[in-house]
Amino acid sequence: MKNKIQQVQTWTITPGERTFRSDMLVAEEPLEIRLAFGSGQGRKRFSVAVTMRTPGDDEDLAIGFLFTEGIIAGRDAVIATRWLDEHVLLVELHPDVYVDEERLVRHFFTSSSCGICGKASLEAVRTITSFYPIAGSPVVSPDFILQLPGLMSKQQETFASTGGLHATVLFDLAGNLLYLREDVGRHNAMDKVIGAALRAGHPLPFRENLVMVSGRAGFELIQKASMAGVPILAAVGAPSGLAVALAEASNMSLIGFLREKRFNIYSSPERIA
Amino acid sequence: MKNKIQQVQTWTITPGERTFRSDMLVAEEPLEIRLAFGSGQGRKRFSVAVTMRTPGDDEDLAIGFLFTEGIIAGRDAVIATRWLDEHVLLVELHPDVYVDEERLVRHFFTSSSCGICGKASLEAVRTITSFYPIAGSPVVSPDFILQLPGLMSKQQETFASTGGLHATVLFDLAGNLLYLREDVGRHNAMDKVIGAALRAGHPLPFRENLVMVSGRAGFELIQKASMAGVPILAAVGAPSGLAVALAEASNMSLIGFLREKRFNIYSSPERIA
Repeated sequence: MKNKIQQVQTWTITPGERTFRSDMLVAEEPLEIRLAFGSGQGRKRFSVAVTMRTPGDDEDLAIGFLFTEGIIAGRDAVIATRWLDEHVLLVELHPDVYVDEERLVRHFFTSSSCGICGKASLEAVRTITSFYPIAGSPVVSPDFILQLPGLMSKQQETFASTGGLHATVLFDLAGNLLYLREDVGRHNAMDKVIGAALRAGHPLPFRENLVMVSGRAGFELIQKASMAGVPILAAVGAPSGLAVALAEASNMSLIGFLREKRFNIYSSPERIA
Repeated sequence: MKNKIQQVQTWTITPGERTFRSDMLVAEEPLEIRLAFGSGQGRKRFSVAVTMRTPGDDEDLAIGFLFTEGIIAGRDAVIATRWLDEHVLLVELHPDVYVDEERLVRHFFTSSSCGICGKASLEAVRTITSFYPIAGSPVVSPDFILQLPGLMSKQQETFASTGGLHATVLFDLAGNLLYLREDVGRHNAMDKVIGAALRAGHPLPFRENLVMVSGRAGFELIQKASMAGVPILAAVGAPSGLAVALAEASNMSLIGFLREKRFNIYSSPERIA
């Protein structure tokens, strides 16, 4: 497996001084996710995504991506994953898993610079999410929420050494950190966490959980979390207007600007007592 | 035109207090970029991208995107842009502009979650960039570089009110801020700045300029800037390992972790005296 971290030489400049030294940077490499589906003579392969990601946890990423994009319904759809070459991971589906080929093509044909993947409207999201609207109604305290940034940053090893990563964390409601994944791409970090949980047999929907992201909360992060039925999503950064609209429509509690001593609730505030 | 900013209601929680108030968030909406090309009966339309972006400067975004993705060589390829509906912007190319259709299809068919668009390798970048390696050799002082964050943040109006945007700026070597664009997507902010400069008739390559980005410097931002022949790119955040490799190969001076009193140089240090 490739390293998540890469060493480079750098010149550090301060007023009046120039120092040559080693620096650690986060690695970024392309990954192609290829899907094998169908049975017998009709078995096919299809390239569903090429993404720039931080190497590591690639099986989590692939299975999380296929799930959050609505292509598979859970880990049981997958027989195996294997590397076709350094940058190409093949996901073998069970022969009896139905894949809507026309939708696959439409889905990926129109996608481009940042992950929208053709599902441009709230309406489209509704049609593919099984857990819509989100039903879980855990109630947590403000103090519970306020402790999360500290719990997360303690575990962000790669970020600490490189400053170059987004993190996503799945917590349970006792404040246990179940899965933490880091990636140069925020969507990848989310897919890796959801994929890791699914692969470990975490039951769907993620009813008694909270997802936290280290950066901003855009539309697609809400969409991906809603696919797993996550009732509460907390972001260190700002949400977008469309992210709030989707969280409201999905009955997800969306928290933004989560700092040590304050946060904002943008939707479904009844889950924070 | 849609607003860049959206007002929402939010509950702000601090220990022991819950306040209901208005908050300003950055807007995020899908944009489909469609291309019209060819002549006479053979004229065709092709959807080249659907991206989540902050509304505004959409013509800059469309033309910048087509340029940085290697589909057009400059603004002269474009006759006009017009809205087909609220979310679909058509870019009309001159009938005699050659578009490699097979490449278009290959390019966008394999693309997905974050902007890689099929051009996964350094090799691929080399084949489409006209200004490779970057020839411009301006020399600037450390003090010149150190003043840039202050110049940029003074102008970041939307960020100041929402906290939710990436900014990209094109500076000249006298420290004049020529173009600043903000977007929820960092790739979009870069495309908007390059598109704005091209539309205003800024000559190619951008030999006597510096580009600054408010966040991290990933592979694709370096690739996009290299398409315009930008000799120096400065990022407030961390570069990735692959970004450094591409900057080195392109002879671009890459600066990272640019703060008020220090920065790092990762490649082509001879341009910083």
